[in-house]
Amino acid sequence: TGLAAIFINLAVENFSGWKYTATFAIIKHSYFVGFFVYTVFNLALVFSSVYIVTNFAPAAAGSGIPEIKGYLNGVDTHGILLFRTLVGKIFGSIGSVGGGLALGKEGPLVHTGACIASLLGQGGSAKYHLSSRWVRIFESDRDRRDLVTCGCAAGVAAAFRAPVGGVLFALEEVTSWWRSHLMWRVFFTSAVVAVVVRSAMNWCNSGKCGHFGAGGFIIWDISGGQEDYSYQELFPMAIIGVIGGLLGALFNQLTLYITKWRRTYLHKKGKRVQIFEACLISLVTSTISFVLPLLRKCSQCPQLETNSGIECPHPPGTDGNFVNFYCSKDKEYNDLATIFFNTQDDAIRNLFSAKTFHEYSAQSLITFLVMFYSLAVVTFGTAVPAGQFVPGIMIGSTYGRLVGMFVVKHYKKLNIEEGTYALLGAASFLGGSMRMTVSLCVIMVEITNNLKLLPLIMLVLLVSKAVGDFFNEGLYEEQARLRGIPLLDSRPKQVMRNMNAKDACKNQKVVCLPRVSRVVDIVSVLRTNKHNGFPVVDRGQNGESVIGLILRSHLLVLLQAKVDFQNSPFPCGPGVLNRHNFSDFVKPASSKGKSIDDIHLTEDELGLYLDLAPFLNPSPYIVPEDMSLAKVYNLFRQLGLRHIFVVPRPSRVVGLITRKDLLLEEDDNTVMAELQSTS
Amino acid sequence: TGLAAIFINLAVENFSGWKYTATFAIIKHSYFVGFFVYTVFNLALVFSSVYIVTNFAPAAAGSGIPEIKGYLNGVDTHGILLFRTLVGKIFGSIGSVGGGLALGKEGPLVHTGACIASLLGQGGSAKYHLSSRWVRIFESDRDRRDLVTCGCAAGVAAAFRAPVGGVLFALEEVTSWWRSHLMWRVFFTSAVVAVVVRSAMNWCNSGKCGHFGAGGFIIWDISGGQEDYSYQELFPMAIIGVIGGLLGALFNQLTLYITKWRRTYLHKKGKRVQIFEACLISLVTSTISFVLPLLRKCSQCPQLETNSGIECPHPPGTDGNFVNFYCSKDKEYNDLATIFFNTQDDAIRNLFSAKTFHEYSAQSLITFLVMFYSLAVVTFGTAVPAGQFVPGIMIGSTYGRLVGMFVVKHYKKLNIEEGTYALLGAASFLGGSMRMTVSLCVIMVEITNNLKLLPLIMLVLLVSKAVGDFFNEGLYEEQARLRGIPLLDSRPKQVMRNMNAKDACKNQKVVCLPRVSRVVDIVSVLRTNKHNGFPVVDRGQNGESVIGLILRSHLLVLLQAKVDFQNSPFPCGPGVLNRHNFSDFVKPASSKGKSIDDIHLTEDELGLYLDLAPFLNPSPYIVPEDMSLAKVYNLFRQLGLRHIFVVPRPSRVVGLITRKDLLLEEDDNTVMAELQSTS
Repeated sequence: TGLAAIFINLAVENFSGWKYTATFAIIKHSYFVGFFVYTVFNLALVFSSVYIVTNFAPAAAGSGIPEIKGYLNGVDTHGILLFRTLVGKIFGSIGSVGGGLALGKEGPLVHTGACIASLLGQGGSAKYHLSSRWVRIFESDRDRRDLVTCGCAAGVAAAFRAPVGGVLFALEEVTSWWRSHLMWRVFFTSAVVAVVVRSAMNWCNSGKCGHFGAGGFIIWDISGGQEDYSYQELFPMAIIGVIGGLLGALFNQLTLYITKWRRTYLHKKGKRVQIFEACLISLVTSTISFVLPLLRKCSQCPQLETNSGIECPHPPGTDGNFVNFYCSKDKEYNDLATIFFNTQDDAIRNLFSAKTFHEYSAQSLITFLVMFYSLAVVTFGTAVPAGQFVPGIMIGSTYGRLVGMFVVKHYKKLNIEEGTYALLGAASFLGGSMRMTVSLCVIMVEITNNLKLLPLIMLVLLVSKAVGDFFNEGLYEEQARLRGIPLLDSRPKQVMRNMNAKDACKNQKVVCLPRVSRVVDIVSVLRTNKHNGFPVVDRGQNGESVIGLILRSHLLVLLQAKVDFQNSPFPCGPGVLNRHNFSDFVKPASSKGKSIDDIHLTEDELGLYLDLAPFLNPSPYIVPEDMSLAKVYNLFRQLGLRHIFVVPRPSRVVGLITRKDLLLEEDDNTVMAELQSTS
Repeated sequence: TGLAAIFINLAVENFSGWKYTATFAIIKHSYFVGFFVYTVFNLALVFSSVYIVTNFAPAAAGSGIPEIKGYLNGVDTHGILLFRTLVGKIFGSIGSVGGGLALGKEGPLVHTGACIASLLGQGGSAKYHLSSRWVRIFESDRDRRDLVTCGCAAGVAAAFRAPVGGVLFALEEVTSWWRSHLMWRVFFTSAVVAVVVRSAMNWCNSGKCGHFGAGGFIIWDISGGQEDYSYQELFPMAIIGVIGGLLGALFNQLTLYITKWRRTYLHKKGKRVQIFEACLISLVTSTISFVLPLLRKCSQCPQLETNSGIECPHPPGTDGNFVNFYCSKDKEYNDLATIFFNTQDDAIRNLFSAKTFHEYSAQSLITFLVMFYSLAVVTFGTAVPAGQFVPGIMIGSTYGRLVGMFVVKHYKKLNIEEGTYALLGAASFLGGSMRMTVSLCVIMVEITNNLKLLPLIMLVLLVSKAVGDFFNEGLYEEQARLRGIPLLDSRPKQVMRNMNAKDACKNQKVVCLPRVSRVVDIVSVLRTNKHNGFPVVDRGQNGESVIGLILRSHLLVLLQAKVDFQNSPFPCGPGVLNRHNFSDFVKPASSKGKSIDDIHLTEDELGLYLDLAPFLNPSPYIVPEDMSLAKVYNLFRQLGLRHIFVVPRPSRVVGLITRKDLLLEEDDNTVMAELQSTS
């Protein structure tokens, strides 16, 4: 994942570098030709991206985070973890981000990390003959899920060069079942990513990577900024939080409507419409980012301290503040071009920058905010890989800087930095849209290297999340719901408290299979209903009893293999399982699985019998029929189950298991009698 | 918790300040009198601490973290969350830390935070008439547990001024059942603590707090140090990790033996022995820390850059490097005194300091390491509040600095700082002893304000934890086991895979109560066995069936109240619960609860009946008797249960609950058919 991130960054920075160098060279002669070259360059990149996605890897569109969240919650979206998706994601991101659209490469990197993890867990892609057998330790669904969680952390760690932020992102945002020993594994993954990324960047420092910038482990270092804050500043900071909550919630709502509209009307019409749409948006984005700065009058360069390291205007071909674009004099700069006619990374760096008071006029910032916000909303949901982190930071830092300008004017205190407010604004917008707390806080600290602002970032995030939660759900939850990914919330719904287990399965007809079933019966059961699991019953000395659960997928494997069919309608002996590898029953990640229609059986075979006992899950979880549905929900959700049997009330209790019974070794503790349990 | 932390810090720093000022003033005239005053001062403080703990709040001894961990895992140690424990902890910490023992105030602050949280959850201490009714929302055990988790986070946030570290500590180290919406609450608590602590420190900056230092939000700022590292350094850093793992595991093992020995032989002999022991250790500590530096020859002050802000020797009465102690000349300093004859905080600051090459001789560092390690091992387990963080950092930074000295010598690179290695050493020892990963990493970054070393800290922690795990368990787990707090691990033991539920309760005789029981029967059941819960059975149309679980504690409440006794042996009507407040059934935190022997009933009352139906838990979790014990364990552990009924195999299945049945509202989703579940 670290190498993938470096590759994407390298490609994007180089494409952008060439683009801006060429454009700046050409506009010395003709602005019209420069505009043409700029637009065509962007269009070509965006076209390559949308072409790859629509024709080769449709699952690579969007950020992929809602789908991964769904996967870890227990819902598999088709194609989300395939090798082709991985390839499409990597090359698609390069096109869409390099093409200057209002989207980021960070979300797609999370998806990339998850794909890599899943492929490693399978030992490579079977389809492209890359499979190997050495990693077959990840055969259980749970281990594979853990690995995908590590992959997500690696994605964030690589995207933001924020290893701890990656761990926390995996923990807070994506996983549904966190187990404490997973912490250590995720942590290890992130540490390795950190070292890989750093090594690659060290190698690039020697100038071998073209336009790929120097930049240390911290993306947007603002350590030169404000170190302290006074209590009067808390009020404007709270305002930033409120703005973030409002704009973030609005963003979620608007994107929801637009995505809904796209799904219903636009994307049904086929690939061509999707390609046309993306190209159109690219044209609009290019036009706005080129033409708007042209309309803006240049400003006089301010007096800068000579040792601040900031030049005005900065030399062409380097990153920095004070871009000279369409200015009549040499000592002038265009403040709108500084943020608009630039890569997003450089624009953010410029917005965060300290010691650059009054670089931007309020008018430019408002223009940029409105235009970029609209572009981000419209771009969201096109058929290209797209992250929302960087656009969110752009939007947030714009209004943050705006508030900062007013604070600087109003309080007349010298040690207030507009860049600090831009940072808080960025945090507030992400908090208001994505509704993360701890992980976002750590990511913001890690990418700006300013630990002293930590309490302020925390407060802004708390305000913006609270305000946002008042209106709607987080961006990823909204999008997951829209895509029909039914995420199970960590808490049961209120209405479940008044329902019981029987109510939840009221209209069901439970189909049971006898232990030794006729093949023809099994086939007809599989054909006539869509359940994924069936109870198996057996008649013993004490009457009928439920002996376990058999999965549809396992039945299909057995029917296809045919080796277990037998003539006698009586249970078979032991040693049957040796006929099968455990791996035969493992469903490959992200595939559609087998269907009963794919299996063809002869008349003779249909008349045979099959003993299900060796293949069933002998102890599925059970609940009595009148248990509160809220309790059932907790059981289902927290243990990550797929099936629970609802059974009649038991007639007697064989035993009672308490904490003491589960502490097998320690039976000599006399102290334990003094202790009382709390839970 | 923030205010408590400030109070403790203020008191400790002032006591230490007076102590060192007085001693330094006196030794100008006589070293012997100085030694006497120093020793008596320490002895008085330690005596006050051990006296408070032994006579007033025995539960305040030690760090309290294993007990809190136990509480959150479901085991209540008597007295651990009482008001008197809180008071004892605060004043005890001041005495023990101010008295110069080899222990810290950070662990006790976690306990302090937990106590405050628990008392708030009860609406104050009932015993001291501080109770109020407004916070009765925390009546359920679960909410109270969540509040205590927040308290722990607040403790760490206040102790280290590390809010994010606090959140992660609560998450990684103390809680057993993490719920995702707890994240947000814990985060909020930490943010408030951060603001409170900062406000108090700002107020102190104006000089109103005596010796309480300036210090910003970061305790030991080493931002002036090394910013980069080369790959050759990774090897010595791995060595530090290995040393940390070895010394940390050794520390756990030694303290385990000594605590065991103390429990069996020493502390049984009463309070006087405990007081005597603590005083003796105080005397030994004072003697070693005073006399050893005396034996050490002073060194010549090095040539320092004038603008580095470091003076040699530093002016008396201020914190800093290069302490002049028993030196013949003015321009000399005593390197052993710089770390030994000093508060621990200042010693750590001096060890972490950059730009002070060759300040310490290897001989001094080794002497200090051996002596302090021994003192820390011996001090652990005395009857005073004692944390292991700061001593751990002391030990770790000593050998870290030692390794750093060799690296500086060997690699002859100029930008290697010994202070950086001291920091890595501190991380490695804590990692090797406490076995935390993410939270420790964030805490180390937060207390030193050096984000650029993050990947190195991660690697060192990974190595030291791996090495330590090879030998034994973490410090808190070892201590919890020793104290008879049976923590349920998050994973079932290997042997459980081959057992089933029936095996776990093989020797039990299950006592069932009928729905309407005679009072005399209930009393005899409660007298004759020690179970905390009893199944209740009822005879309906379909034969006998289990209708729920009644808790011993609830039965005791009913027996004491007597209002529900009835003459008829038939079920009563509805509306009975109105006779009771819900709060009657709530067990106060950390109390022993009622006993059957406290309840006195007349002959007449014993002959009456009691209908248990309104008071029982109607749907306890059930498992079939042949379910794998590992599965039962997961159910018990992850849902935080107290009782599970083991029942015979069900004879039929009423229904099957799947993900779809639990997504109540969304039944219109045609997309769902495309999706497949993964878990």
